[in-house]
Amino acid sequence: MKVSFIGSGNVASHLAMACKNANLTVVDICSVNIEHAKDLANKCDARAINSVHQLNKNIDLLIISVNDDALTEIAHQLKNTNIPVVHTAGSVNAKVLVEVANDYGVLYPLQTFSKSKTVELTNVPFFVEASTKQFESNLARLVEKLGAKFQVANSEQRLHLHIAAVFACNFSNYMYTVAKELTDQHKLPFDALKPLIIETAEKIASLSPSEAQTGPAKRHDVNTLQKHLQALSYKPNYYELYKLISEEIQKNQNS
Amino acid sequence: MKVSFIGSGNVASHLAMACKNANLTVVDICSVNIEHAKDLANKCDARAINSVHQLNKNIDLLIISVNDDALTEIAHQLKNTNIPVVHTAGSVNAKVLVEVANDYGVLYPLQTFSKSKTVELTNVPFFVEASTKQFESNLARLVEKLGAKFQVANSEQRLHLHIAAVFACNFSNYMYTVAKELTDQHKLPFDALKPLIIETAEKIASLSPSEAQTGPAKRHDVNTLQKHLQALSYKPNYYELYKLISEEIQKNQNS
Repeated sequence: MKVSFIGSGNVASHLAMACKNANLTVVDICSVNIEHAKDLANKCDARAINSVHQLNKNIDLLIISVNDDALTEIAHQLKNTNIPVVHTAGSVNAKVLVEVANDYGVLYPLQTFSKSKTVELTNVPFFVEASTKQFESNLARLVEKLGAKFQVANSEQRLHLHIAAVFACNFSNYMYTVAKELTDQHKLPFDALKPLIIETAEKIASLSPSEAQTGPAKRHDVNTLQKHLQALSYKPNYYELYKLISEEIQKNQNS
Repeated sequence: MKVSFIGSGNVASHLAMACKNANLTVVDICSVNIEHAKDLANKCDARAINSVHQLNKNIDLLIISVNDDALTEIAHQLKNTNIPVVHTAGSVNAKVLVEVANDYGVLYPLQTFSKSKTVELTNVPFFVEASTKQFESNLARLVEKLGAKFQVANSEQRLHLHIAAVFACNFSNYMYTVAKELTDQHKLPFDALKPLIIETAEKIASLSPSEAQTGPAKRHDVNTLQKHLQALSYKPNYYELYKLISEEIQKNQNS
């Protein structure tokens, strides 16, 4: 199976490496930034190009992993090339690729990828949408080769999955960022919070998040909430965030 | 070493069981709710009582684990009993116990405890404050027996640690709660988010939270942010939360 990539960001990098490790042939890595393309292409024995017009058309699948904003423009450039094509964006409709080929769709890995950390794809669910049943089977085979988990979702379901993932991943990570800034500011060891962060995430395997909820807001511990808000008053944005989320936790509990 | 507990909530339950498992003698479990006291006392071969006046004074340590709001009242009831005493609250000054005994202090385990899930105390940091060096050594020995990690923090440092823990644990758990509600509402599998939640937490072992940040806000992906806000417009509190945290992520990145 021969695949090419447009994009050289976090998702493209992890998927291209996963393809190589699964013994697929990675043909082209295309990126407007040729240096980025070269870096990734070197790692997966591919060719680096910086224009979609240079793409080798003799491939089984083209995977587009670019900023959601850039996707429409690239789809336009690829019009009628008839290369089987998917994008990897959670919140972009599959239809954006309808004029590229008969076989078009989406391959959305529900995971967070940072370039400097390897991610095991085992158990990672890939949500797939395809224009035909045959193309869906081809994509299922690819997901299986990568060792990941195949699931089907249409564009609307994928949008809601993406929003849920933003809360579960991007926003919880931002909460860690605030915690780190608070410990740094008071010369306290952020490392001391790491077992807590892991336990909080692991709890969800056996408890629902609302069962797992602890803390002063959940306990309606008014004195502590007041002390915390007072201690945060020097930092208005953290104060607001603390107040809003605590109120939400208390509302949620009562509902 | 003989210890007793006032309180029968999440923290008291986990610490009492950990004491029993470490072959310490748990003497009394005191709770205004005698049924709760009995439940816990049965599990750790202790006596259940519902008034502090019934406490056996021939013990090495009394651990008070109650709502922060109830602590002042209990300290008042224990005035001059002279039993070595600690509380476990992150945000209450050690001084609240100054009139109870010469040996008073705080034993603050930086962890999230839910009754229905066992927590391994290995690597859990216990932040200790003590009125005397000798009492601090006694508490260090206890922490060691529990297999946990001994660290010293004064009341002000502990307050800031507690606030950081609220963000890192209670608030990230609330983000999981929102994610679950969104997937439930659209009949999508919340389980699909679990590998993502674990990976997000595990990333922090090797990357700082700001390095680990991903998602549409971080990428300044304006189209996606707009789509998500539009999709959340039916749920004003999630809309506000999404908007506020996305703005914070973008500000944080620029600073």
